[in-house]
Amino acid sequence: MSYNNFLYLINDALKNNHIELALESLKTFRAADLADIIAQLPIETRQTLVLNLPDRSYVFSYLSPEIQVELAKVLPRQVLADIIGEMSSDKRADVFKRLDEHQQNALLPALAQAEREDIRLLSSYMEGTAGAIMSSEYATLLPNMSVADAIKMLRSEAPDTETIYFAYVLDEARKLLGVISLKQLILAQEDQNINELMVTNVLFAKVDADQDDVAKTIARYDLLALPIVDEQGIMVGIVTHDDAMDVAREEATEDFLKVGAVNATSKLSLKSTPILHLYKNRVFWLVFLVFGSLLSGIGIAHFEDIIAQNIVLVFFLPLLVGSGGNAGSQSSTLMVRALATGDVQFKDWFSLLGRESLVALCLGITMAVAVSFLGFYRGDEYVALVLAISMIGIVLLGCLIGMSLPFILNKFGFDPASASAPLVTSICDATGVLVYLSIASVILF
Amino acid sequence: MSYNNFLYLINDALKNNHIELALESLKTFRAADLADIIAQLPIETRQTLVLNLPDRSYVFSYLSPEIQVELAKVLPRQVLADIIGEMSSDKRADVFKRLDEHQQNALLPALAQAEREDIRLLSSYMEGTAGAIMSSEYATLLPNMSVADAIKMLRSEAPDTETIYFAYVLDEARKLLGVISLKQLILAQEDQNINELMVTNVLFAKVDADQDDVAKTIARYDLLALPIVDEQGIMVGIVTHDDAMDVAREEATEDFLKVGAVNATSKLSLKSTPILHLYKNRVFWLVFLVFGSLLSGIGIAHFEDIIAQNIVLVFFLPLLVGSGGNAGSQSSTLMVRALATGDVQFKDWFSLLGRESLVALCLGITMAVAVSFLGFYRGDEYVALVLAISMIGIVLLGCLIGMSLPFILNKFGFDPASASAPLVTSICDATGVLVYLSIASVILF
Repeated sequence: MSYNNFLYLINDALKNNHIELALESLKTFRAADLADIIAQLPIETRQTLVLNLPDRSYVFSYLSPEIQVELAKVLPRQVLADIIGEMSSDKRADVFKRLDEHQQNALLPALAQAEREDIRLLSSYMEGTAGAIMSSEYATLLPNMSVADAIKMLRSEAPDTETIYFAYVLDEARKLLGVISLKQLILAQEDQNINELMVTNVLFAKVDADQDDVAKTIARYDLLALPIVDEQGIMVGIVTHDDAMDVAREEATEDFLKVGAVNATSKLSLKSTPILHLYKNRVFWLVFLVFGSLLSGIGIAHFEDIIAQNIVLVFFLPLLVGSGGNAGSQSSTLMVRALATGDVQFKDWFSLLGRESLVALCLGITMAVAVSFLGFYRGDEYVALVLAISMIGIVLLGCLIGMSLPFILNKFGFDPASASAPLVTSICDATGVLVYLSIASVILF
Repeated sequence: MSYNNFLYLINDALKNNHIELALESLKTFRAADLADIIAQLPIETRQTLVLNLPDRSYVFSYLSPEIQVELAKVLPRQVLADIIGEMSSDKRADVFKRLDEHQQNALLPALAQAEREDIRLLSSYMEGTAGAIMSSEYATLLPNMSVADAIKMLRSEAPDTETIYFAYVLDEARKLLGVISLKQLILAQEDQNINELMVTNVLFAKVDADQDDVAKTIARYDLLALPIVDEQGIMVGIVTHDDAMDVAREEATEDFLKVGAVNATSKLSLKSTPILHLYKNRVFWLVFLVFGSLLSGIGIAHFEDIIAQNIVLVFFLPLLVGSGGNAGSQSSTLMVRALATGDVQFKDWFSLLGRESLVALCLGITMAVAVSFLGFYRGDEYVALVLAISMIGIVLLGCLIGMSLPFILNKFGFDPASASAPLVTSICDATGVLVYLSIASVILF
């Protein structure tokens, strides 16, 4: 049976109120898959299914933000409160932040006191910080417990924690003293003390740390979770490895789109984002880049006489100018990614320029040889000479511009990833026009 | 004390054989940080430090491939065998694969029989598959064990497994029957049977599955590890969440570089990759793209007369042609990333074309309004009309080309990410030249 037929049957069963039948056929599906199925049902049966699913709050946390908000409008208030109440604290705060003020105010009284407090706290942190992605459900232990008592405590805490594989040892003021893994506890003697076993040299992040840095720390040290502390060193949450993976993917997507000159967050979906929103994400750069192209136009206008007398030069214009832009995009792409992955730092810029110049020179000479044959074929030996010299200069300049732009943008407080391929291309184009036509005017006239 | 001064002191202590002192000052550092320090020491003291570090095989696995190979040449053979023997099985196979045949043959006899077998097996899998990144150290249990016996068994297996938080239940033929978490075991009654507790609906991947798909599965279902089975359903390894995160980052880097028209693996480092290697990664696309630019040149040559009679057209050439290229790069970037993250599938292409045409039309009209003022200012109302019509056509075509190229490349068996910004730009440039000059020749003559 194809997936579409299956969806059709599920939809039919739900429409005719054969709930048991639908649930039975969905029994072996996982939360992420159920969320996909829900996304493809019409709104009426979507609602019926969510109302009846056994693991509904877990499945709900896998739904896309748009569908969560849409369901929040149609589900009975107490059902919504139950679903949100059972979600993990970080997901719960995310859903809450997406509701409009009216919905939020309607929902709050239906939630338990502790959940209300938790939402208020977690939604108070700025987007993009550790606080905004952390969970407040983690296992804690006291320093003077025995291993046997610690395991007993973890057992009782398990339903309310994201993981029991790591427990954080706190003093009475909830200051972070150490961390201990369930593996250590299982391997230790039952009467040993947590004090002697815990690791005291704990990695942590501040609650206002950049979420990207938190994700990088988790990846670098292969952690399952990173504890988050406030200004006073008091533990306030954990960021888990799966959240770190989501952050890393979001950051990669945003950088990727920036390089293509699209202003966007990773939430943008080609399928479901409204047309006008897609338009807004793209129009700024397109209009901005017109000014870059105008520079090329002005350069060409300046040399109009030379072009008019030697119209063969126009034939090679796209080739030369394009090669500079292409080499420049390569350089900026390499640099932006190397900065993002930590392969290079800003302080390496100067030493990298030397390496890049060598690479650019090799590339330029290769291209010059190729293009001078073409020049000789369509023009004469002078045209060939103009092309060869121009090509080396243009590729060299293109590479140096492409490599430097991310650094310059950063100096002025912009994201280095804004050095998009189209931006580098238009700057290199204008430079290329000037170099080419200047060299031509010197050699040919 | 600055980091550089600290490195200087460590180097000095090692040079003067004050090993204890150096180790004492490095005591609080983590493996990933120690690997960074080692990378910055000269080769002699690098070797001394690795020889004396207490956790040397763990630190060794964090070193870059180049430094691992370099150290493998200078370390005494038995020390190298000890280090490699103690490494986790996947890291061990990775290092082994990087050694040359002579080094491999020298090393094998110094390793234990089990390690030799393990290396032979793990290095036999193709790069890019689950087999090439999996570890063969995982905890296993039998189906008819009690919970108490299972915990005892995990305790004894712990030193030889990557994780004890998940254990795989196998039958006598090592076929995968189910999976159970340490959390489940801790929460269960001691006399319960594994049979009743284990999850039998286990997610797994085949050993020849694409590593990118394995990483996506781990991210989608928020797993700590994914079991890997062979053709017969026999369990052969696990891929852990941290390996999945590394794969996701590598794939993102490769796609990112492809969009910038650089043929590269994620292993490329701007700082340490040899110049000639960087050259080779870039020259193919640069030369290839010359042909794209030649098409533009041929287009221009075809309209040489019109240009010569109306030299003002050249002024607007970069602007019009550039805008098509920029809009096209935006479309292809959005599409490549949406395909990579799973936001869209190839089957969505046709329905996406409609949305994209609408966005492109809005963008084109905006740009047309802007550019027609310029045309009127520098030329007359006819030039303004040529520019407005051309701009709408060029942006529309650019977007449709940018959106379709990833799909077309995929149809012909190429990676859709090869639809790089420079490739899209050169195709759009050539199209733009034709559209612009054709419209001009109709309206102006």
